[in-house]
Amino acid sequence: MSEEVKTVKETCTIMTEMVLPNDTNTLNNLRGGKILHWMDIATAISAGKLANRPVVTVSVDQVSFLNPIKLGDVVTIESKVTRTFNTSIETYVEVWAENLPTRTKYRCNDAYYTFVALDSNGKPTRVPRVEPQNEEEQKQFDGALKRRQLRLIIAGRMKPEEAEELKALFVQ
Amino acid sequence: MSEEVKTVKETCTIMTEMVLPNDTNTLNNLRGGKILHWMDIATAISAGKLANRPVVTVSVDQVSFLNPIKLGDVVTIESKVTRTFNTSIETYVEVWAENLPTRTKYRCNDAYYTFVALDSNGKPTRVPRVEPQNEEEQKQFDGALKRRQLRLIIAGRMKPEEAEELKALFVQ
Amino acid sequence: MSEEVKTVKETCTIMTEMVLPNDTNTLNNLRGGKILHWMDIATAISAGKLANRPVVTVSVDQVSFLNPIKLGDVVTIESKVTRTFNTSIETYVEVWAENLPTRTKYRCNDAYYTFVALDSNGKPTRVPRVEPQNEEEQKQFDGALKRRQLRLIIAGRMKPEEAEELKALFVQ
Amino acid sequence: MSEEVKTVKETCTIMTEMVLPNDTNTLNNLRGGKILHWMDIATAISAGKLANRPVVTVSVDQVSFLNPIKLGDVVTIESKVTRTFNTSIETYVEVWAENLPTRTKYRCNDAYYTFVALDSNGKPTRVPRVEPQNEEEQKQFDGALKRRQLRLIIAGRMKPEEAEELKALFVQ
Amino acid sequence: MSEEVKTVKETCTIMTEMVLPNDTNTLNNLRGGKILHWMDIATAISAGKLANRPVVTVSVDQVSFLNPIKLGDVVTIESKVTRTFNTSIETYVEVWAENLPTRTKYRCNDAYYTFVALDSNGKPTRVPRVEPQNEEEQKQFDGALKRRQLRLIIAGRMKPEEAEELKALFVQ
Amino acid sequence: MSEEVKTVKETCTIMTEMVLPNDTNTLNNLRGGKILHWMDIATAISAGKLANRPVVTVSVDQVSFLNPIKLGDVVTIESKVTRTFNTSIETYVEVWAENLPTRTKYRCNDAYYTFVALDSNGKPTRVPRVEPQNEEEQKQFDGALKRRQLRLIIAGRMKPEEAEELKALFVQ
Repeated sequence: MSEEVKTVKETCTIMTEMVLPNDTNTLNNLRGGKILHWMDIATAISAGKLANRPVVTVSVDQVSFLNPIKLGDVVTIESKVTRTFNTSIETYVEVWAENLPTRTKYRCNDAYYTFVALDSNGKPTRVPRVEPQNEEEQKQFDGALKRRQLRLIIAGRMKPEEAEELKALFVQ
Repeated sequence: MSEEVKTVKETCTIMTEMVLPNDTNTLNNLRGGKILHWMDIATAISAGKLANRPVVTVSVDQVSFLNPIKLGDVVTIESKVTRTFNTSIETYVEVWAENLPTRTKYRCNDAYYTFVALDSNGKPTRVPRVEPQNEEEQKQFDGALKRRQLRLIIAGRMKPEEAEELKALFVQ
Repeated sequence: MSEEVKTVKETCTIMTEMVLPNDTNTLNNLRGGKILHWMDIATAISAGKLANRPVVTVSVDQVSFLNPIKLGDVVTIESKVTRTFNTSIETYVEVWAENLPTRTKYRCNDAYYTFVALDSNGKPTRVPRVEPQNEEEQKQFDGALKRRQLRLIIAGRMKPEEAEELKALFVQ
Repeated sequence: MSEEVKTVKETCTIMTEMVLPNDTNTLNNLRGGKILHWMDIATAISAGKLANRPVVTVSVDQVSFLNPIKLGDVVTIESKVTRTFNTSIETYVEVWAENLPTRTKYRCNDAYYTFVALDSNGKPTRVPRVEPQNEEEQKQFDGALKRRQLRLIIAGRMKPEEAEELKALFVQ
Repeated sequence: MSEEVKTVKETCTIMTEMVLPNDTNTLNNLRGGKILHWMDIATAISAGKLANRPVVTVSVDQVSFLNPIKLGDVVTIESKVTRTFNTSIETYVEVWAENLPTRTKYRCNDAYYTFVALDSNGKPTRVPRVEPQNEEEQKQFDGALKRRQLRLIIAGRMKPEEAEELKALFVQ
Repeated sequence: MSEEVKTVKETCTIMTEMVLPNDTNTLNNLRGGKILHWMDIATAISAGKLANRPVVTVSVDQVSFLNPIKLGDVVTIESKVTRTFNTSIETYVEVWAENLPTRTKYRCNDAYYTFVALDSNGKPTRVPRVEPQNEEEQKQFDGALKRRQLRLIIAGRMKPEEAEELKALFVQ
């Protein structure tokens, strides 16, 4: 039985949002939690474009916030699927912001969100594979294994000494 | 000059939320991004109770979602400060949900959010220390060092071989 | 047949909210209606914890707003069941606010919300009793009768001269 | 110095809302707290039309919910000023709902909200008087005294034996 | 078979809204899109009052925004049905705003929204007629034909030379 | 003095939204007003990318809704500037929706929104020109004159007989 394959491009999603007063703190910076929320929606749509099924977030890798985003700025969120593992879907998302009056565009953060696709009974179900089409997509595809090991170790579901890919980082 | 010290308890924050239709996907599960948003608000309040200043989120450690939360369930979010480092504040947050009609309460996830306190010019500023008062608080306090090393490595700001605490995990 | 009994503590609910721009008037004070809304959610959760069933608000006693709550302040809403009468549940809720930068905490208001529990056909149904465990809970429990008479009189469902408990207030 | 006078009609406000999923409980009934919130906005606008200044809610009299309002129904909220006392403004609000497909219109509840007008320093300030123009407005105007006594007694700011108007209800 | 007839008055809807921070741009003007949204809700309720069925928006005629509406102002939206065509319902809506502190009331814009009523299978279904009761209602009723031709031409569903009513405007 | 010129591409904006329960009517169709609101935000961002200043909506041309958008569908809104006239900016926006589980993508509607750029005193100010780069952009650019005449006629600010471009449509 042949398996369905999609390109990374078919899963791309672009969201644009404006920073409104209710989403900022008293210094007029966008709350980190709101960015995490937007990134979850964008990546869930990317995962949904791959799976053509409902998906649920199973994990978010560490997110660092590089630059505060200011009230009134325009935020662009771009996401895509990087690799799939049976029933789980790793997605990558990047956030940029732009202050239109001063014409400054700045990078805010990126993240990996992982989803599981569910069948009509709410049980995890097999998803199509993605096939990288260029060098950058291939690099993301290859790195997915290492990120997956780190996720399992942090979640306490893999022993560090079994994580061959990661171990190499620490032992030279 | 003596430095201000607070107890972990002084920073505790409890939020209760109900899962509404707009926050769920088509299977009536609460979106992961909404939980991340609520956890950010709770931990920002905890960090604010410590610093008595505006705070901004600088990072969120990996979050795994153990159990999907259903429409109509009551969600309890409990957060507190675990340790501070000069200008940064590590907080811990736990999420539980409860289905009232069936009287089932289930654990959903936990996470570490890190904040920086800002002075009136928006620059990072020194924060009070927290002092652990019991064994569990001490354990969280001690673990903060290791989590901080992992954060710096993942963010590309520390070399793995310099992370003494983490290295021990991989090399025995 | 024995009847179910719960403690007041089992019904306690704590909500924490931040005052956002959309909820304030032009003087940056939180609208009274928003507080009433939050108090309704907190007390409905307390009533739901008692009844383990859907509940509907049937009345709110007079609410006085002591201190205006300012934009950016952190609001804490604590609610609990005080007493039940067959199908109805009286709850009590207290609201405090805190300005973190100035470290000032101030009392805002309190209120009694009454609910009815509904069965699966949407009809009022019998609810468990609460048993006061300390002096303060006993006082709230005892006062519930007098508050109930006042409610019925104001709603035009009881004649003032039948309200023995209340009458004593006016005739000495 | 002559004092400004307005008619009740000049303060009338009509709001129309639709009941949306996020405002209902699991039985598809509109939450009481949402109605209280809408009534607060409508009456605040009525009070603002009288005072031409910012106003803050100082109290809400007891509210009873007669009929549950269902998801999708159209809610009409009508408010007006009934009487003023130096710096405070009593308003009356009535809520009706309508199910368009079945052509049924039903009364939901009414309430009295009291506001204080604030000057530019946020201090209570004198407001115009309202002049009743018909029998119904006169009745509301006259009843305001008795309602004010009850408010003060419940808030603990007047002794029951001083409330002459109310006392008559209990002692015949 | 006799057909149901309603008056224009039976379809009147009044909405009152306040301009909140989240709905304004950086110059504190209400976004045009929010006004279009409010006008859609008001006219949908008017169309629903006529049809006593669910309705969907099928078109909005050109809308011009005469005066910017400012943060904090009170917006009044009044709508009514002007004429029906088998399954479609033309509605008219006018928007006024008022700045309470300065006592200035100004006209903002008006528009025609057209709806189709749907039966329980989601198919367009016949609606009652409206009968104009005064000169202004008659004028709106009569003008509906010309507006309908323009709509069909712009939507590419009628050839300009077939639009007899409109043609007269251009050829004299 | 040389004038600033931008390409159409520099003004492109893509928004992705999901249809949530609160934005639908009782037949689970997205409200037309919500689409109009989203289109206004997307086009305002496009106009802001051109002008690098705050912009206000001055008019929306007739909008026809071709296909109802269903609850849960993913909506893509793409906008760009088509032409500018001194201080005003015409933008074009297209809306597509997609039902992920059934893999059906359908066109919903398109529209022209016109904005004016404001200087720091809130007065209309000159904006850069856009230069079409391909046939389709040129066609939109050329059609802008005719659309502008129709807008002015409908708004009552131009006599039909002066609208040379439009007249040709009716008189052959």
